Amino acid sequence: MPLTLVTYDWLPEFPRGFVRDMRVRWILEELGRPYRVDTVPAFPKSAEHCRMQPFGQVPILHDGKLTLFESGAILLYLANDTPLLPDVRRAEITQWMFAALNTIEPASGHWLIMKLAERMPEFFGPAADAGVIDHARQGMDTRLAALEPAVAEKDWLTDSFSVADIAMIETLRVLDAEDVLTDHPALRAYIRRGTSRPAFVRAMEDHMAHWLAADEERAGAA
Amino acid sequence: MPLTLVTYDWLPEFPRGFVRDMRVRWILEELGRPYRVDTVPAFPKSAEHCRMQPFGQVPILHDGKLTLFESGAILLYLANDTPLLPDVRRAEITQWMFAALNTIEPASGHWLIMKLAERMPEFFGPAADAGVIDHARQGMDTRLAALEPAVAEKDWLTDSFSVADIAMIETLRVLDAEDVLTDHPALRAYIRRGTSRPAFVRAMEDHMAHWLAADEERAGAA
Repeated sequence: MPLTLVTYDWLPEFPRGFVRDMRVRWILEELGRPYRVDTVPAFPKSAEHCRMQPFGQVPILHDGKLTLFESGAILLYLANDTPLLPDVRRAEITQWMFAALNTIEPASGHWLIMKLAERMPEFFGPAADAGVIDHARQGMDTRLAALEPAVAEKDWLTDSFSVADIAMIETLRVLDAEDVLTDHPALRAYIRRGTSRPAFVRAMEDHMAHWLAADEERAGAA
Repeated sequence: MPLTLVTYDWLPEFPRGFVRDMRVRWILEELGRPYRVDTVPAFPKSAEHCRMQPFGQVPILHDGKLTLFESGAILLYLANDTPLLPDVRRAEITQWMFAALNTIEPASGHWLIMKLAERMPEFFGPAADAGVIDHARQGMDTRLAALEPAVAEKDWLTDSFSVADIAMIETLRVLDAEDVLTDHPALRAYIRRGTSRPAFVRAMEDHMAHWLAADEERAGAA
């Protein structure tokens, strides 16, 4: 039975390219594993969705009887017993997974929410004062600067491309899109190494095609 | 060779009880594994510290030749092949680990940083407007409310106490200390179930004794 990846039925323009089904699509392409896509409504969220995922988020993965949420856990699950998570480097790779999702992302998210609120208060709440945003930016920049040497002298976080690079690059891409990595050239080069991989390119094509098909369906229904 | 847990040499009062070496002390007590404690200076951080941990954080674990950082990765490493991470529930337990550290903690941290800035701007930066803090509080409360059913009808997140409960309870404890769980009685009862475990009690005693010994050493040196 093929894997099923659950994502939203439709989303507005702004999060496209960065929805977290991307990290799952990417690893599935790296592993050459076929999958089908199922959807849940984004607005409003359904009771069925919240039964599968209590926080009403995506992605969700179905693998036979297993239903799994949290993109970090899905990545580790799919990477298990593959070259993206060799047993001999399991601890080190897991360390960088959490560095992406529990050190970089909380700091970048804290800044990003306030930054996006300036443009989209309807989604992200009232805008904060510049001083508050600047302080968040400094906290994020300190961590990004600390990360930079880890990928400046080698291509990937560990000795070969791993599931941790998928998590880290997916965490960094949105910051590059917000143009805040100009002082971190090694991080930008690292992102480019990741996003030029054929598996990433295929995943992004499918990800964007999904939203375009959703647009067309809505236009047809209207 | 025993395990070595690295934490700070001294810290002011406010983070005591909540420094992330606590989650590692807790699991080590659950597993009955002896360990020694080593320290790194908190102010200023040392070059040696940042060589072990690029972000200048604690905890760090030494196990023979392995040096590991990120408390989430340390927890999974120590739990491996123990009843705190049974293979048959590995995917589900990992899912809840990431729910704690990548869904609850970013949302609670976003609120907590702004809340603590009201009392301690020297550590947490300028205070945000009430509207910004309220919006962060709502985002956090939505996730806490979604989490509550997961521990309302059973004792632990999965069928028995696991490493995910350590991560989740450690994420929630600081919110209870800030008195924001009054609308979430199941979460407070869940925290009490965790913190009444003998292993937690021993870990907390050792954690607090560490800071008191550090106070005395500073007083002696002054």
